[in-house]
Amino acid sequence: METDAKGSKIIRLAHGAGGSLQSELIDFIVKDIAHKNVNNGVGVKELDDGATIPLQQINKEIVITADGHTVFPLFFPGGDLGKLSICGTVNDLLMMGAEPLALTSIYIIEEGFDFDTLGKIVNSFNRTAKEANIAIIAGDTKVMPKGTLNDVIIATTGIGIKDENIKILDNNLKVGDKIIITGTIGDHGAALMASREGLNLTTDLKSDIAFLKEIHATIEDNIRNNHIHAMKDPTRGGIASALNEWSVKSNVSVWLDEKSIPIKDEVNAVCDILGLDVFQIACEGKALMAVDSNYADEILAKIKSTNLGKEAQIIGETKSENPKKVFLKTVIGGTRFVDMPLGESIPRIC
Amino acid sequence: METDAKGSKIIRLAHGAGGSLQSELIDFIVKDIAHKNVNNGVGVKELDDGATIPLQQINKEIVITADGHTVFPLFFPGGDLGKLSICGTVNDLLMMGAEPLALTSIYIIEEGFDFDTLGKIVNSFNRTAKEANIAIIAGDTKVMPKGTLNDVIIATTGIGIKDENIKILDNNLKVGDKIIITGTIGDHGAALMASREGLNLTTDLKSDIAFLKEIHATIEDNIRNNHIHAMKDPTRGGIASALNEWSVKSNVSVWLDEKSIPIKDEVNAVCDILGLDVFQIACEGKALMAVDSNYADEILAKIKSTNLGKEAQIIGETKSENPKKVFLKTVIGGTRFVDMPLGESIPRIC
Repeated sequence: METDAKGSKIIRLAHGAGGSLQSELIDFIVKDIAHKNVNNGVGVKELDDGATIPLQQINKEIVITADGHTVFPLFFPGGDLGKLSICGTVNDLLMMGAEPLALTSIYIIEEGFDFDTLGKIVNSFNRTAKEANIAIIAGDTKVMPKGTLNDVIIATTGIGIKDENIKILDNNLKVGDKIIITGTIGDHGAALMASREGLNLTTDLKSDIAFLKEIHATIEDNIRNNHIHAMKDPTRGGIASALNEWSVKSNVSVWLDEKSIPIKDEVNAVCDILGLDVFQIACEGKALMAVDSNYADEILAKIKSTNLGKEAQIIGETKSENPKKVFLKTVIGGTRFVDMPLGESIPRIC
Repeated sequence: METDAKGSKIIRLAHGAGGSLQSELIDFIVKDIAHKNVNNGVGVKELDDGATIPLQQINKEIVITADGHTVFPLFFPGGDLGKLSICGTVNDLLMMGAEPLALTSIYIIEEGFDFDTLGKIVNSFNRTAKEANIAIIAGDTKVMPKGTLNDVIIATTGIGIKDENIKILDNNLKVGDKIIITGTIGDHGAALMASREGLNLTTDLKSDIAFLKEIHATIEDNIRNNHIHAMKDPTRGGIASALNEWSVKSNVSVWLDEKSIPIKDEVNAVCDILGLDVFQIACEGKALMAVDSNYADEILAKIKSTNLGKEAQIIGETKSENPKKVFLKTVIGGTRFVDMPLGESIPRIC
């Protein structure tokens, strides 16, 4: 455990990287919070990546999610801070089975940052919000003195609405579920790292940043009928983090089939060069799902019919044996654990 | 207009200071946003410091507000970043006539920050939330590499609920309204600046940081019956900023009576030493109101009956002549403008 000169335990980059140290930090922050009902006719319920406020009169729930966006560089292959902030928030809501409704935006900006560049980020933020049909309803701006913040960060809170009987939860995987990924993994992390490290790749590897509305829409019936047991966009920590979390919370094991997992050659190459584990790096436009096996082929076909989901695959299934672990059947016939990342030390990936 | 070496217009500290440059920055960020209704049975309406989502079935509205908290130092006389984050958010909701319901919290932390100090902030945040009876329902944490962020900042979004017929709005002042302040002004700004500048004051000047639930509760009937036309906690930019904004939006003039405005001697002293305008510096536990003159004495008496409101005063009134301006009748009998601050250049005051 890392400490400073006085022996105090200190925050490491890995505490923000979506792995087990991230969980430790979150536990530290929330340990004394009493989630509770509020006594004015509108209660509050906990949910995986956010929370809901029941609207009993209309059998719906308001869904809430929060995100800090600190990506570096501000402009990367395929996107920028503004687009990332909207896509991240919209995807969190969609992955909870909700229709994105509105969001709040808080810009924190370094003194001396230039308006031209800010304008590009703001335009991208506002344009993507419009494309995603989500209203920006409240905001704040703060300026920090030069040298106390690197450039600009954006914090968003997303608000959506969903039918109260939709249950998409990390602890809801059933034995026999099929695991679906809606396209190639690791594109965002690999593109960002390649651009940061100045790798001169001849290919045009880009972030997969996108909002998942098209995919959400095509499987809306399956969502409403609870054929989707869990759903997540695997950002920080990649599919390794998401699947390990599911397996622990649902008390099942997950068995992945390596040869069915879609990965771009360029992404594999960047991971090889930089020593990254492709299962642990971020996507920004993919959905990972655990679905009722009776509907898996139907759901896969629907996803494949969309522009974003052409490369979707069933990449594994859940079992009862050896619960709380994720296994990979490798291409060469072996089996290995897919570990929860300790903390991948790719700072400012999202 | 300040520019960088390439001639680009740049962000100045004053763009974050609650004055007219702040308004310019906000306009820049929101200029392309189309506030719109969303077509799923739950619309979105704009409001002054936030927005509302109508819940027509129960004649209520969900109220939303957003805040970035960057205060420096993290611990100041009377409070800390954690307490400030909760009070700021709760007060924004109360000042919109809403009952605080829930909030989201986003912690952004510098690598190397120590857990002991973080723990103190987190405990204060969670404890104050409990005292204020507001649930923390979703959150996020990000870690930024050492040297790219000074310590830690918190971004919050508050969610409250109010009766749909309560109208407390910046553009709602009527000619003849009385202006009430619930206690002394400038305490927070003066205490923070004195501690930053290392002024060795023999007095124990503290921030007035507090949540205004007690005051909100005592005038709840007046809020429900729309005797309160406008209400705001005058933080960045002080009462000068709040009153100028009201006068412009409501097309009235505001006439303040200097001798009735409660100001602590120590606050006046700090302002004199540091060259600050007491009307332009932040309170963090005061409400400024424009109220129906028929109920002004009743409302004042109720506020004075609370612990927080003992020093409340009627400090002025609105008129139709010379609209969109704020005037001060000075102690020595003259009259001067109270200007909208351009930007007070007290960074990280809240």
